[in-house]
Amino acid sequence: MAYFDAASAVPLHPVARQALQASLDEGWADPARLHREGRRARLLLDAAREAAAEAAGCRPDELTFTPSGTRAVHTGIAGALAGRRRTGRHLIVSAVEHSSVLHSAEAHEADGGTATRVAVDRAGAVDPAAYAAALRPDTALACLQSANHEVGTVQPVAAVAEVCRQAGVPLLVDAAQSLGWGPVEGAWSVLAASAHKWGGPPGVGLLAVRKGVRFAAQGPVDERESGRAPGFENIPAIVAAAASLRAVQAEAAGEVRRLHELTERIRARVPHLVPDVEVVGDPVRRLPGVVTFSCLYVDGETLLHELDRAGFSVSSGSSCTSSTLTPSHVLKAMGVLSEGNVRVSLAPGTPAEDVERFLQVLPGAVAGVREKLGVPAPVAVVHRDEIVVDALGKRCPIPVIELAKVIGDVPVGGTVRVLSDDEAARLDIPAWCDMRGQEYVGEEPAAQGTAYVIRRTS
Amino acid sequence: MAYFDAASAVPLHPVARQALQASLDEGWADPARLHREGRRARLLLDAAREAAAEAAGCRPDELTFTPSGTRAVHTGIAGALAGRRRTGRHLIVSAVEHSSVLHSAEAHEADGGTATRVAVDRAGAVDPAAYAAALRPDTALACLQSANHEVGTVQPVAAVAEVCRQAGVPLLVDAAQSLGWGPVEGAWSVLAASAHKWGGPPGVGLLAVRKGVRFAAQGPVDERESGRAPGFENIPAIVAAAASLRAVQAEAAGEVRRLHELTERIRARVPHLVPDVEVVGDPVRRLPGVVTFSCLYVDGETLLHELDRAGFSVSSGSSCTSSTLTPSHVLKAMGVLSEGNVRVSLAPGTPAEDVERFLQVLPGAVAGVREKLGVPAPVAVVHRDEIVVDALGKRCPIPVIELAKVIGDVPVGGTVRVLSDDEAARLDIPAWCDMRGQEYVGEEPAAQGTAYVIRRTS
Repeated sequence: MAYFDAASAVPLHPVARQALQASLDEGWADPARLHREGRRARLLLDAAREAAAEAAGCRPDELTFTPSGTRAVHTGIAGALAGRRRTGRHLIVSAVEHSSVLHSAEAHEADGGTATRVAVDRAGAVDPAAYAAALRPDTALACLQSANHEVGTVQPVAAVAEVCRQAGVPLLVDAAQSLGWGPVEGAWSVLAASAHKWGGPPGVGLLAVRKGVRFAAQGPVDERESGRAPGFENIPAIVAAAASLRAVQAEAAGEVRRLHELTERIRARVPHLVPDVEVVGDPVRRLPGVVTFSCLYVDGETLLHELDRAGFSVSSGSSCTSSTLTPSHVLKAMGVLSEGNVRVSLAPGTPAEDVERFLQVLPGAVAGVREKLGVPAPVAVVHRDEIVVDALGKRCPIPVIELAKVIGDVPVGGTVRVLSDDEAARLDIPAWCDMRGQEYVGEEPAAQGTAYVIRRTS
Repeated sequence: MAYFDAASAVPLHPVARQALQASLDEGWADPARLHREGRRARLLLDAAREAAAEAAGCRPDELTFTPSGTRAVHTGIAGALAGRRRTGRHLIVSAVEHSSVLHSAEAHEADGGTATRVAVDRAGAVDPAAYAAALRPDTALACLQSANHEVGTVQPVAAVAEVCRQAGVPLLVDAAQSLGWGPVEGAWSVLAASAHKWGGPPGVGLLAVRKGVRFAAQGPVDERESGRAPGFENIPAIVAAAASLRAVQAEAAGEVRRLHELTERIRARVPHLVPDVEVVGDPVRRLPGVVTFSCLYVDGETLLHELDRAGFSVSSGSSCTSSTLTPSHVLKAMGVLSEGNVRVSLAPGTPAEDVERFLQVLPGAVAGVREKLGVPAPVAVVHRDEIVVDALGKRCPIPVIELAKVIGDVPVGGTVRVLSDDEAARLDIPAWCDMRGQEYVGEEPAAQGTAYVIRRTS
């Protein structure tokens, strides 16, 4: 078995396990208490805060432990927005943030605030100039991930932080994907992270708020964690999170190079091993362990099951939307193919042989899924130079498969109209045209669903 | 060392430790994932939900795991209030709830809602008739603890639930102090609890919402835990919490009797061993392991330190306000003495010898603190039949000590005026009068602080 889904969670680091065991005995009491069990718990909590703050690049009194990265993001965004409410209620986020950030933005809009979603390029990166352009006099907060969780693209955080600093707007950085590799560079104001991403236990997030940033925690008052994280502190897990963060950062330098080389192999070889594939995300500015690609004419979930049977645990589409049917918002914002999407994310220590074995297995797995899906006969009606494909009621990747089957049946200059009511078609049909060198004319409303018009150019 | 602070937290139960160890290896992955590590995590989570739901007396699909009991309360109250917003915005709580409930009520009021705080009797119990009287056509929710966390008094939950049911108002029960002893009786609608109170790990709360209760989770959308607890699930801790809840409930019957007998010993003997002491809380309808008493002329924090030095970890005043200077809201609502307050709460398994040793040590510890505090010379001015004691700037228990020193210096029928700016005096001077059979005339505003007037009657 090879576990290639480190970007969602990694097994407990040995240092985390050791620290957790020890502090189950020493850190179970209430640190607000004055008796010796309470004082001992308080000492552990203070020491963990010192260690985690150093690793995150902030002061201990700027750091709060939350029950998860998602809670750190929710609390951080709500608190920073409320703290600057007098300035205004405008929020800036990138279009490819984690769902916890995007859902916070939606909640803010539902509450009467406004939000700008900054677009990304085809590699998934934002342009600092786009953040500069989005800033307004009433902007209360800007948010940017340190690196994208689905495609691994590293964002220009330091440059965006500088743009924000000049405008006097705080920048919240979601560092969930990168903190294990090292502290976030640049003048960030608020930072969120999640321990189970770096080998710490579940149940611990970090929320750092720089001194001087106006911050007003929302919800009922609670005395714990500077009033920013209500509820009894999970000290054993906090101690384990802090200890493992230091450990993984210390081990990072060597693993960064090694994993980068392993994912580079996948990036380079997959397009030769698998026909009709698109590797997505920035080829250079990227997380060391993450590589993502999409396969034409393949259903991501079926491919994932095939790979699982072959012994590889990967993820498909957005990590937080795999249970829904809409295509990943990240791939959509990038304008790249979403069908047959696979994210390989390697944990530190992944052996090179596992990657080699994956490259051996992948072509057969993709071919198998394509064979299964390739059968349906297209219902096509020819009107002079146009073929109409009725793919209503059929889910991704069927509409693209049917398009591919008939494109050769119209003359060069002729068109194919694909009728589809699957949301993924809006992304995948243009992406297919791009990969195939055909012209995507556009979409038109239809009696049912949407008509996507493609002109044959070669 | 004897740990007598089980009502704040107890060490990990052996079953919890074992379950935690095992599920650190099996339950670290994301249960939303389709690969085998994810499916394995999902199985553990589902099994834990089944087990915990059975122990809590609800259906698995009614139960959500939160990161703490406090979060369960915050989410439960906010969600139930929002779910019934069309009915109205009136909330009922008892005056002796945990701070998480009272702070939720304050947040609700700050947001434009209204709240009624139901009074308690001298034993700390509410009267179901008082809940009935508090119900209004616009009441959205009522809250009541299953048992009080400071004095151990068990509340008439089933009767209050029936009153609420008849009015069509949901009742949220904070079962933090009692769930380890067994499920909550009566037709409750929403239930909150906390694993570290029963020997589960920190980081897990329970929130049960009965089918049919209108509930609208607040804050940003999140798919996990039925949308009621955002963030990555802490599966190892959840598994440990569920396993230990079943274990402690199975062991409860024997321990209930044994601990009840041990605390009964303390209740019965402390008044004979220590002069000027008041045992508080209901003598019969009470938690098995909790006994609380207050000692005149003693500062609770100093006494706690004395007992800590002697090897006993107890708690003083309200568990959640020990870092503040105001007297416990619970003791205040009960109208009993708050000075020199000690809560003894025994964990299952506490040996009888520890309790005996405590009873040997306590009288000397109290006497030592009284000796230290007994010295200050009262600044008293005699006007005919009245003595004025200036205790301004002096903290509890000094104002009461000075009052006690001069009461014999006025004739029967004469008065003592105590000038004090310590909030605790408002509670402790009337309580002292009650214990001493003197007449508490009342309070009057003074140039500085407040004048408390006491008439000597014997």
